[in-house]
Amino acid sequence: DITKDLVYSLEDKLRFGQKMPLIVLTDNGSTDEDIPALSQAEAYGIDVVVIDHHYPGEVINGKAEVDEYVSGHVNPYLVGGDSNLTAGVLATEVARMINEEVTPEICHIPGIAVVGDHAKGKEVEEYIKIALKDLTEMSRKYGSGREYTVEDLHKIALCMDFEAFYLRFMNGRGVVEEILATNKREIHRHEKLIDILYERAMEMIDRQMKAVLPALKTEKLDNGIILSILNVEKYAHKFTFPAPGKTCGFAHDNIVQKYGEDKPIITIAYGPDFGVVRATDAVSEKFNFNLNLIVEQLIEEIPEASLDGGGHECAGSLKFVEGLRDRVLTRFIEIIKEMKC
Amino acid sequence: DITKDLVYSLEDKLRFGQKMPLIVLTDNGSTDEDIPALSQAEAYGIDVVVIDHHYPGEVINGKAEVDEYVSGHVNPYLVGGDSNLTAGVLATEVARMINEEVTPEICHIPGIAVVGDHAKGKEVEEYIKIALKDLTEMSRKYGSGREYTVEDLHKIALCMDFEAFYLRFMNGRGVVEEILATNKREIHRHEKLIDILYERAMEMIDRQMKAVLPALKTEKLDNGIILSILNVEKYAHKFTFPAPGKTCGFAHDNIVQKYGEDKPIITIAYGPDFGVVRATDAVSEKFNFNLNLIVEQLIEEIPEASLDGGGHECAGSLKFVEGLRDRVLTRFIEIIKEMKC
Amino acid sequence: DITKDLVYSLEDKLRFGQKMPLIVLTDNGSTDEDIPALSQAEAYGIDVVVIDHHYPGEVINGKAEVDEYVSGHVNPYLVGGDSNLTAGVLATEVARMINEEVTPEICHIPGIAVVGDHAKGKEVEEYIKIALKDLTEMSRKYGSGREYTVEDLHKIALCMDFEAFYLRFMNGRGVVEEILATNKREIHRHEKLIDILYERAMEMIDRQMKAVLPALKTEKLDNGIILSILNVEKYAHKFTFPAPGKTCGFAHDNIVQKYGEDKPIITIAYGPDFGVVRATDAVSEKFNFNLNLIVEQLIEEIPEASLDGGGHECAGSLKFVEGLRDRVLTRFIEIIKEMKC
Repeated sequence: DITKDLVYSLEDKLRFGQKMPLIVLTDNGSTDEDIPALSQAEAYGIDVVVIDHHYPGEVINGKAEVDEYVSGHVNPYLVGGDSNLTAGVLATEVARMINEEVTPEICHIPGIAVVGDHAKGKEVEEYIKIALKDLTEMSRKYGSGREYTVEDLHKIALCMDFEAFYLRFMNGRGVVEEILATNKREIHRHEKLIDILYERAMEMIDRQMKAVLPALKTEKLDNGIILSILNVEKYAHKFTFPAPGKTCGFAHDNIVQKYGEDKPIITIAYGPDFGVVRATDAVSEKFNFNLNLIVEQLIEEIPEASLDGGGHECAGSLKFVEGLRDRVLTRFIEIIKEMKC
Repeated sequence: DITKDLVYSLEDKLRFGQKMPLIVLTDNGSTDEDIPALSQAEAYGIDVVVIDHHYPGEVINGKAEVDEYVSGHVNPYLVGGDSNLTAGVLATEVARMINEEVTPEICHIPGIAVVGDHAKGKEVEEYIKIALKDLTEMSRKYGSGREYTVEDLHKIALCMDFEAFYLRFMNGRGVVEEILATNKREIHRHEKLIDILYERAMEMIDRQMKAVLPALKTEKLDNGIILSILNVEKYAHKFTFPAPGKTCGFAHDNIVQKYGEDKPIITIAYGPDFGVVRATDAVSEKFNFNLNLIVEQLIEEIPEASLDGGGHECAGSLKFVEGLRDRVLTRFIEIIKEMKC
Repeated sequence: DITKDLVYSLEDKLRFGQKMPLIVLTDNGSTDEDIPALSQAEAYGIDVVVIDHHYPGEVINGKAEVDEYVSGHVNPYLVGGDSNLTAGVLATEVARMINEEVTPEICHIPGIAVVGDHAKGKEVEEYIKIALKDLTEMSRKYGSGREYTVEDLHKIALCMDFEAFYLRFMNGRGVVEEILATNKREIHRHEKLIDILYERAMEMIDRQMKAVLPALKTEKLDNGIILSILNVEKYAHKFTFPAPGKTCGFAHDNIVQKYGEDKPIITIAYGPDFGVVRATDAVSEKFNFNLNLIVEQLIEEIPEASLDGGGHECAGSLKFVEGLRDRVLTRFIEIIKEMKC
C-alpha cells in the first residue's frame, strides 16, 4: 500500500540521498476517493501519474477534480471516451509512446486486458485481433503451434487473477511475465504454465460454486428483474480464491447463462459488513440502473450505516457497519423492486 | 514482536559473529505481565533496558518485581513519582543524559508526549511551554512562521497515532521524523505534512463517529454515573483507523464534552472477546473507581472467562473468551451500578 | 507458502542467472491433495523431493499417485511400512545418507520427533534410547549434567511447537537450532532456553484449558464411546498458542487421563467453518473408526458443504462452509452414535 511504499522511499532518500520515485497508479487514482492518498504523496514531494479508466466525475475543460493533485492523468473520459479502453490498454499505449521498441513484447496485452474486463466496442475488437494474431504466430515459432482464440485470452486473464490473489502485494516479477507471455521466445513455458494454472483456478472455482450455487436464492421480481441473493459469509469458502467479488461474478455468470444475457439480471453477494453487486447491461439500459446513484441514495437515507462504495454502473461494492446490514440490504432490494422499465 | 526480533538477532550472531543487541523497551516492560518475554530474552543472553511509566506493582527499596530480569529500569514509581511523566518524557531525558548535544533536536518531544497521553502536573506544564517556545521559534526561522499552541501539539500527537496505525511493525524512519519535527530546518515540510495527515485522520474519525454515535447507549445510573455502552463489532468500521481503543476514546470525549469533564462518566466499548473502558477522573476520585481492581475481581468471580486486562485506573481493556462475554459485561456493569460516592 | 517461494526463486533466476532451487517437502507432499502445488512447481522446471509419512493412497509397484510429479519420494508406505516412522526420522536418515559426518549433531532428533508425534513400535523405542543416551552424555560434558528421560523429549517437542506457532513462515535458524540442541557444546544454553519456553508454553496451555474445560460437553454414548464436544470459537482464546488443533488435543488428553487410554474416547472441537477430531486407538480398534472414511461419506452426503479434510485415522480436521456447519456436525455425531463394536 501507499503508506508502506512512501516509508521505504523516504528511508532510501534519507540514507542514500536517492531521488524520490515517480509513482504510476494504474486502474485507480481518477476518482475523488483517491484524493486523500494523492495529497499525502504530494506532501512528500512525490510526483504521481494516474492511468485509469474509471469515471473521474465531471470533466470541465478536459480536467477532473483529481487533476489538481497529480502530475499526469490519462483517462478516456477526459477526452470524451469511456471505460471500454481499460487500464491495460492505456498502460500499453503509454509504454509504447515512451519507447516504441517494446511493442513486439507487449502488443498482445491490450487484448488480454479488454477480455478480462468484459470491455466492448470497435477498438476492443481490434485489440483482440492483434493479440490473437501475435500469440498464434509466436506459438507457431516458439511454442506448441496452437491457434489462439478469445477463449485463450479469457484463460490468461483468469490465470492472472488467480495468481494475483496469491501474490497480493508482492510484485511477482517473473511469474507475471510468464503468465502474460511477454517473453515470446519462451512462450512454450507460458503455455504449459497457463494449462496448469487454469486447471487449478477452475478447480478452486468449481469448489466455490459447489458451495455457493445451492445457497443462491433467485427470484423473479414483478418488474421482470431476476434477482439473486447470496450470503458469502455463510455459504462460501473464505480467504481463498475466488474472493467474494469474483465469487459473486461467477455466480452471476451462472445465472446469466441460464436465463440469457439479454435479460435484466442482478446478483448481490453479501458478508457481515459488505456487499458486492453485478448486473447485466439490460438492467442499466432498460431500468436506468446505476449502482453509484443507489449508493449515494443509501448514504443519504441511512447515514448511521457510514456507507461507502460504488464502482462501475453495473458492477461494484458497498461497505457499511455490521449492525446496519439488514437495513441497508432491505432498502437496496426495495429500490430494485421499485425500478421501472 | 520480540520473537521475530530475537530470531533475526540470533541469525546475525550465528552468521556474522555480531554481538547481541541491547533491547530498549519503552512505554511497556515494567509490569509482571512482561516477565515471560523478558526472561526469554535473558535466556538468549540479551540485555534489556526498560523505560516505562506504568505502575510496576509494589516498590520495595526502589525495586519492582521486574527488576530481577532487566539490566536497567527507568520508572517514576521507583522513586515516588507517578505516570504523569510519560514514556516520551523519560526516553527524551535518557537520550539527553547519553548525549546532551541532541537536546535542540528533541527538546519539544516531551511536550507532544504529555499532551498525547493527557498527563497533568507542574512538570507537564513546563514541558508544554518548552515545546511551544521551540516550535514557534523554529517555525519563524524555517517554517510558516506560525505561533504554536497546545492544540498544535494535540494535532501532532494525533498524526503520530494515525501514522502508527498504518506503520504497525515497520520502523518508519523518515515519516516518523517528519511527523515529530526533529529535523527543524525542514519544519516547513513537517507543517505541510501535519496539515494533510490531520485532515485525513479527522476524516477517518468523523466517518467512525458517524457510525458509532447513533449506536451509543447512554444512561444515567442511580448513583449519578453517566454510563455509555457501545458494540464496536457491530457499529464501527473494523481494521481501519481509529481502532477500537481510540474509537472508544473519541466516543467518550464526545459524551464528556456534552456533560462536562467534572461529571462521573464511564464509556465501555466491546467486541466479541474484548472490552475497552474509559472513565473521567471524577469516577476515580468520587467513587474510588480503579479498573485494575475490577479486572482482578472479575478474574476471581468468573475464572472460566479466562480474563486478562487492565491498564491505568481510568483507561484500559479486558480480554475474555467469546462465550462468556455477556456474563463478564453484565457483572462489570453491575459493579459500576453498585459503586457509591 | 509455495507461491511466494516460487516467485522469489524466479526473480533470482531472471536477475542473477541463478539455477532454480531443489525443493524438499517434509511431513507433507505424499497425498493427492498435494498434486496441484507439485504440478505448478513442475511447470516452472523445479525439482521437488518429498519426505513424508502420511498415507499416500494405494501403492502399486512401490509407486503412489504423486510419484508422477516429484523427482524423489521417501515414504514408509511405499515399502510396506506405516506412519510410525515420522518425517523427523526420515529426514534425519536422509541427511545421514548424504553426509554421514552430521550424525553426532542430529542423532537425537528422531527421538524427539517420534515422541512429538506419539509414534509407536520397536524402531521408535530404539530412537528414543539413542536420543536419551546422547543428550544425557552431552549434558554431562557441556551442560547441567542431568539424566534425560522421555519426559524431556516431550518438553523439547512441545517447545518446538510453541516456538513454531510464533515463527510461522520465518525460517527461525538460530532459535530452532537452540531448541533442538544440535549445537551440543552449547547444550547448557539449550537447557536454559527449554526451561523458560516450557514454562511459558505451559502457562499458555493452562490459560487455554481454564477457558476450555468448563465448556467441554462430555457424554457417554449407548455404544460405550465417550464423546466430548467443544466450541473453540466461543470458549477458547484465538490467534494465540495453542491453536484450535492443539487445543483439541490437550482437551482430549485431559479426558483420556480421566477415563483411561484404553477407553473409546472421541473429542471434537469446532469453529464456524472447521472441526478438529481426536480419538483414542481403542475407537479405531474396536469400532473400525477411520476419520478419512467418515470425511469421504460426508462429502458424498452433503456436497453443498464443499467439505474437505482428513488426516490420520484417529486425528485430523474438517473444513466446510459456515452455513452448513450444523448439518455436518450433526451428521458426524450421528455416524459416531451408529458405530458398533
